[in-house]
This record gives sequence, C-alpha cells and structure tokens, in this order.
Amino acid sequence: MILQQKKELIIGLFGFGTAGSSLYEALTNIPESGISIKRICIRDGAKVRHAHASLFTTNRNELLQDPEINVIVELTSDPLAAYEIICTALDNGKAVVTAGKKTLADHLPELIERAQATGLPLLYEAACCAGIPIIRNLEEYYANDSLKSLHGIVNGSTNYILSQMTANGLTFADALQQAQVAGFAEEDPTLDIGGEDAANKLTILLAHAWGITGQKPLYCGIDKIHPADAKLAADRGQCIKLVARAQRLPDGKIAAFVLPQFINKQGKIAGIHNEYNAIEVAGSLDTQFFSGRGAGGNPTASAVLSDLQALRYNYYYDYYKLHHGGTLLSGDFYLKVCISYRSLLHVRHEDFVRIDEWISTENRCHISGIIHSSALAGNWWKSGVTSLIVYEDGLAPLLEFEPLLNATPSKTDATHAHQ
Amino acid sequence: MILQQKKELIIGLFGFGTAGSSLYEALTNIPESGISIKRICIRDGAKVRHAHASLFTTNRNELLQDPEINVIVELTSDPLAAYEIICTALDNGKAVVTAGKKTLADHLPELIERAQATGLPLLYEAACCAGIPIIRNLEEYYANDSLKSLHGIVNGSTNYILSQMTANGLTFADALQQAQVAGFAEEDPTLDIGGEDAANKLTILLAHAWGITGQKPLYCGIDKIHPADAKLAADRGQCIKLVARAQRLPDGKIAAFVLPQFINKQGKIAGIHNEYNAIEVAGSLDTQFFSGRGAGGNPTASAVLSDLQALRYNYYYDYYKLHHGGTLLSGDFYLKVCISYRSLLHVRHEDFVRIDEWISTENRCHISGIIHSSALAGNWWKSGVTSLIVYEDGLAPLLEFEPLLNATPSKTDATHAHQ
Repeated sequence: MILQQKKELIIGLFGFGTAGSSLYEALTNIPESGISIKRICIRDGAKVRHAHASLFTTNRNELLQDPEINVIVELTSDPLAAYEIICTALDNGKAVVTAGKKTLADHLPELIERAQATGLPLLYEAACCAGIPIIRNLEEYYANDSLKSLHGIVNGSTNYILSQMTANGLTFADALQQAQVAGFAEEDPTLDIGGEDAANKLTILLAHAWGITGQKPLYCGIDKIHPADAKLAADRGQCIKLVARAQRLPDGKIAAFVLPQFINKQGKIAGIHNEYNAIEVAGSLDTQFFSGRGAGGNPTASAVLSDLQALRYNYYYDYYKLHHGGTLLSGDFYLKVCISYRSLLHVRHEDFVRIDEWISTENRCHISGIIHSSALAGNWWKSGVTSLIVYEDGLAPLLEFEPLLNATPSKTDATHAHQ
Repeated sequence: MILQQKKELIIGLFGFGTAGSSLYEALTNIPESGISIKRICIRDGAKVRHAHASLFTTNRNELLQDPEINVIVELTSDPLAAYEIICTALDNGKAVVTAGKKTLADHLPELIERAQATGLPLLYEAACCAGIPIIRNLEEYYANDSLKSLHGIVNGSTNYILSQMTANGLTFADALQQAQVAGFAEEDPTLDIGGEDAANKLTILLAHAWGITGQKPLYCGIDKIHPADAKLAADRGQCIKLVARAQRLPDGKIAAFVLPQFINKQGKIAGIHNEYNAIEVAGSLDTQFFSGRGAGGNPTASAVLSDLQALRYNYYYDYYKLHHGGTLLSGDFYLKVCISYRSLLHVRHEDFVRIDEWISTENRCHISGIIHSSALAGNWWKSGVTSLIVYEDGLAPLLEFEPLLNATPSKTDATHAHQ
C-alpha cells in the first residue's frame, strides 16, 4: 500500500482550437506539473498560433510513432480522424484522453475492448458536460450502486436557445442566431439542435451508469419548438428544456431519451440557464446534483487536465457494471407527451393510448396524452412542423399509467376541442 | 502505462453506528468488489448487532496489529479515539479511510505529515459533505487552479433548523427539537449549532483548495438567530443560511468564515433545504455547483466506498497546493453584517467602521454596517443575546467598500433610529 511515484506524462496533442490552446496555456502556467506537451498535430499548418512553431506538425505519425510520447490527447473536431487517432494511439502503446463524444458514442464497445486488449487507459471526462466531473463520479462514487435514474441538461447550445426563447419570447431561428453570435452555437448547429449531441453524451453516460453499450437512446432536438409551446409552458408555471433522461424500470431495463420536456419552474433543472449544464443522479441511497459549464475551451481543458492528473497515478475506468452483467435499454415504456402541430396531417393521433387534452387554436394545436415508446420509434413526430414535449415525470411503465387509463378524460378546452 | 491489477483490500473497521453498518451492508451486497471487512472494533461489546458476532471485538489491537488487514476504516464518533487509531494504523503500515472531521481539522498538518512519512494513503471524502465528492474534486479537478472562492452549506443539522424556522416561523429551540426528533440533529447538538462542525469541514476544504493548514476560520453558529431575524430576511426576499465561505483577496490570502448569512431567494444556495448540503466552487475558468445529502449513514458509507475504490488503484491525495507554497488565511478584511440584539449593552457599535441602518423595535434591534474582521475576533457578538448575519456579497477588502464609506449614509427608519 506504499505510495508510488506519480508518472511523468509526455503528451502528443491533436487539435489546437479553443480547448487545445486552453490546455496548452494551462500547462505552460504550471511547469512543475509532471505533464508536458511535446508535439501538437494540426490540420492547417499555415494558421498563426500562440505557441512556438516548432511544436506544430501536420503529420500525425510524428506524434503517434514517437516512442517518448506516452499520452495522446485528442481534441480535434473531426469524429472520423478522432477514431483513427484513438485506435492507432492505443495500438502504439499510448494512453488516450479524448473529448470526442461522437466518436465515443459511435464506437464505444469497440474502443473499450481495444483499450482493454492493449492494456491502456482511455479517459474522456471532457466528452460529457466538460465542467462537471460526471463520468468519474459514476465510475467511482456510484460504482456499486444500481442507480435509479439520471437526468439533466447536457447540451449548452440548446439550453442557451431555449433560455432566450423563454426569457425574451424569441423564435427558434432568432434565438439560434443570437446563440451563434454569442459563441454558444456552432456555425453548423445540426448535431446540437437536432439532439444528437446530447444523445451521444447520454450514450456514454449509460455505459458508466448501468453498463449499457451499443444502443442509442431515442432523441429529438428543439428546432421545431414553437413560441406557442414556450407560452403554453409559461402559462403553467413551467419552462421547456432539452432533457437527457434515463430511468430504471421495474423489469431492470433502462428507459432513456433526449427530448424537450416541460420542467416545473421550482425545480433545480429549471434554474439552469443559458450555456450551463446540470445533472441529477438518483442512487439507491442518495441523490446528487451537479451543475457547471458544459462546453467551451476552458471547461474542456479543465476536464482534460483532471484526466491527465488521474493518468499520473495509473487511473483507468473499471466499467464495473458492464463487466458485471450490465443491462439493456428498454423499448417498452410509456410517455406522457404533448404534440404541438399546425396541421393534423402530421399527427398520428391514433398512436395515443389515451388523450388527455386537445386544444386547437389558429396559431398552433396541442394534443397531450400517453403514447408508447415504440410509436415514437417511427419518428413521424419529427416531421417539419411538429414538436414533441414530454411532461415532467411523464415516463413510466404502463402499470403506473393504468389508473389514468381507466379514469374519465380530464376537461379539455371545449371551445376548441376536436373531439 | 500498462493497466495494473487493482489491490485487494482487507478492512479493519472501527465503529458500527449508522455509517459503519451501512458500509457493512453495502459490501455484503457486492461480494466481488475486491473489498472485504475482516474485523470490526466496537466500544460496547454487549449490544446486539446485525452482523456475525465473530466479526466484533472491543480490542483495538486485534485490528491494528493484524498483518493481513491493509486498510483501517475509522467511523467512530470519538475524536480522540479516532486520532489514536489513525496514527497507530499509519505507523503499523495500514492505509486509512476516515470520516472524522473534528480529528482531521484539529490535527491536519500532523496527520498529513505522518501519512507522508509512512508512505501510506489517508483518505477522508466522507468527512466533508458526505454525499458530495468535493475533496476529490478539489484535489483533481482543481489541482492546478488558483480558485477564486468556495462557499456553501456544509452542515445539515443547522440547515434543517433554519429551513424550519423560515418555512414555519418556529423559534430556534422548537426547530432544534424537531430536528432531533427527525434524526437530523445529535442529542448533544453543540458542535453543529455552534458552527464548529461546519468550521471543521471548511478547515479541511481550505487545505485542498488553497494549501492552508494549521489555521481555523472565524465561525459562529445559529443558536442566537431570532425569529425577528428570519422575518427581516423574508421581508427582503431573502432567507438565512449558515454559510461556509472562503474567498481569495487581492493580496493572495484567503478570507474564510462560517457565519449565518442573508441569502437571496433566487440564488442556488437558497434552494438547498433541510438536511441537504451544497457547495459552489468558483475556479479561475469555470464554476461548479454540487448538492447532495451531507450526512447520514448511507451518504457517509457511499463516500467511504468511493475512497476504498480509489485505494484499489493506489490513489492518494497530492496536496499539490500545500506543497507548492500554499497561502494563508487573511486577518484583514471587512464584512457587511447585521447585528441583531435586544440590549445595547451587548453591542460594541463603535466597532463598525460605518453604520448603514439602525432599526430598533421593542421585539428586537438590528444594526447593519461594515466591520473589520479583527473586531469580530474579540467575539463580543457571540454573547448570549446577540446574533450576527453577514450580507450576501458582504465580504471584501476595504478597497471595495471605500465608495460606500465615502457616501452619505442610507436612509434609516427615522422613527426608531438611535442616531
């Protein structure tokens, strides 16, 4: 049990964007950290950068084949390049730290296996809500806990846009433009606003929380959210957030999705504004709540630094739950949702097992009711003019909805009701 | 960089109260964890317990001198016994995990030195806000960050009492009794309500956040808080919380205290009710917020388990900041405070460098103004009938108060003003 000397890390860094350059600066400011960057690989060798020119190369192999480099830090924005870099680094005997959430989500089972086969650590705290140490927390604090649920806001761009729509009544398009000007949305925001980025993060969290890999959760983004939806929420003392949620069902499987959700304004998640992220983890014994900046150069660099610190004492992920059976995503649960639409052509209302409320106005129509997850797998509700919003606590196995199903329908707005 | 086999831990456990028995149960439920309890030392051998009798002994040495036991887990409620157990365990070559915050706060420099001299890890995540992994986070995530500030609610008993006083208008005595009935306050609540328990936790956090050891922060508890104080806060849209706060001053030193504080109802800390704890850490680059259960058997056992997981891969605290210069507590800062009193005999109003408001009613009097930290060191404001409440953002070096000091006094309640 004697303390061991911590490892000296010599880094080959891929990518010198906001995160890469923040990491470089942070390490420059702490010369005695035992961590140093030997070489940086970039795509465009012509760009001027705030670091000595001799550090840079456009040739991957100068990093991947340098026997002195023992850690590759992958901070590129190219998922395919990231995949190749991670694989080659591991094959060449180098530990890897990456922020590549799409790469991880797309290839997690294979990457975990490759890391184990090569006997090398692969760490990626920065890939999920950079400013929140959630992966380490799931790995260590909850390693032996069969978690009840996990939910939160894991994408800053969409949270910024929804915050602006709610606070200032902006349309989605105007809020998106404002987010881009403020630097909180990418030039090509497709992955963020379509929900895929959040789904990628949830995919990674599922591996550590319950040992689920190789399955992606149901997801939808916020680009169809209408100002009338935001107003409907506000009238009920709620707001709309893009929520990643995973919840253990009575059969032991996990229901998981990334969907817009009505959130009570009193709740903790409602207080998370703009580019902030937050996650609540409900363990069998206690509940933890984290919030922090989910993206950006500095939070990402902080998370990478934290992984590097961990590498110094030989840390690696255990995937305890994956190796002790794991579980599966459920395809059999019910959601209480609101479909917001303009034309009934885009709504398969026969998919509802129960309709609670159906309000039509000239501006926008809303149907609220209970729907089976398999009916959502068809994706008709993702069509151009329809949005879907889940009710808070609106996820359950049928059993829990049964009292509702047998009750008489609630009052609808009679003047506008279709049926 | 090759993955190492994780260590097998054989534990000698001291204490079998709520935390100790929760830990025992948790480990019983995960037989393949690589962690097992060999022996349990208790004080009262006659008590009936939910574990096999052969596990128990009242003789410390059967654990401390057993060569097979490689980890001592210390969960007694006796600070002096804890100190002796920790020292002997380290001297006998055993790693230590403890929840003994008072022991740690009273002996931290010596215990850190002893752990280093013996080359053994000493971990204590459970000692600070059990359900929140704050020490590990400071050690790793913020290892290289010269933090701006850290503040939060680190004592669940006092937060429960204040929540009840605010929500239901109870007196301190009634709220305390209710907390005791609900199991959220000890039979002897002195350490909690007097603020010392929170100050002990802040003492430990200061070591990891800024490398400060051997100095204790200013503190005061909540036992003098008057219902009129809670009402004053409510009238201003605020509540009163016992807040542990530490903040870097321009001279690099740290101002630190545990004092009742007015908190804006919109703030995150205001939303932390009853037995919950919360901590906000403002780093140089980002801000993190954590909340969770701060005490109790299960959260404490979870934190201990997390330390044990870490021991399996040779984890130990670096005390990076302590070993790289550290810093000192400041004795030179100003606070904007409200003194609540019944008789002017108990108030040294000449200690205020500026008085902003002085309101006297038959029920209770309140003076608000700016006071130097050294004037508080005399402790006159801790006398039987006086309470002190810090304003939110009421901590600053004099510099920042100067515009205020040179301005004309604000309006006071003319009918009741003393001067």
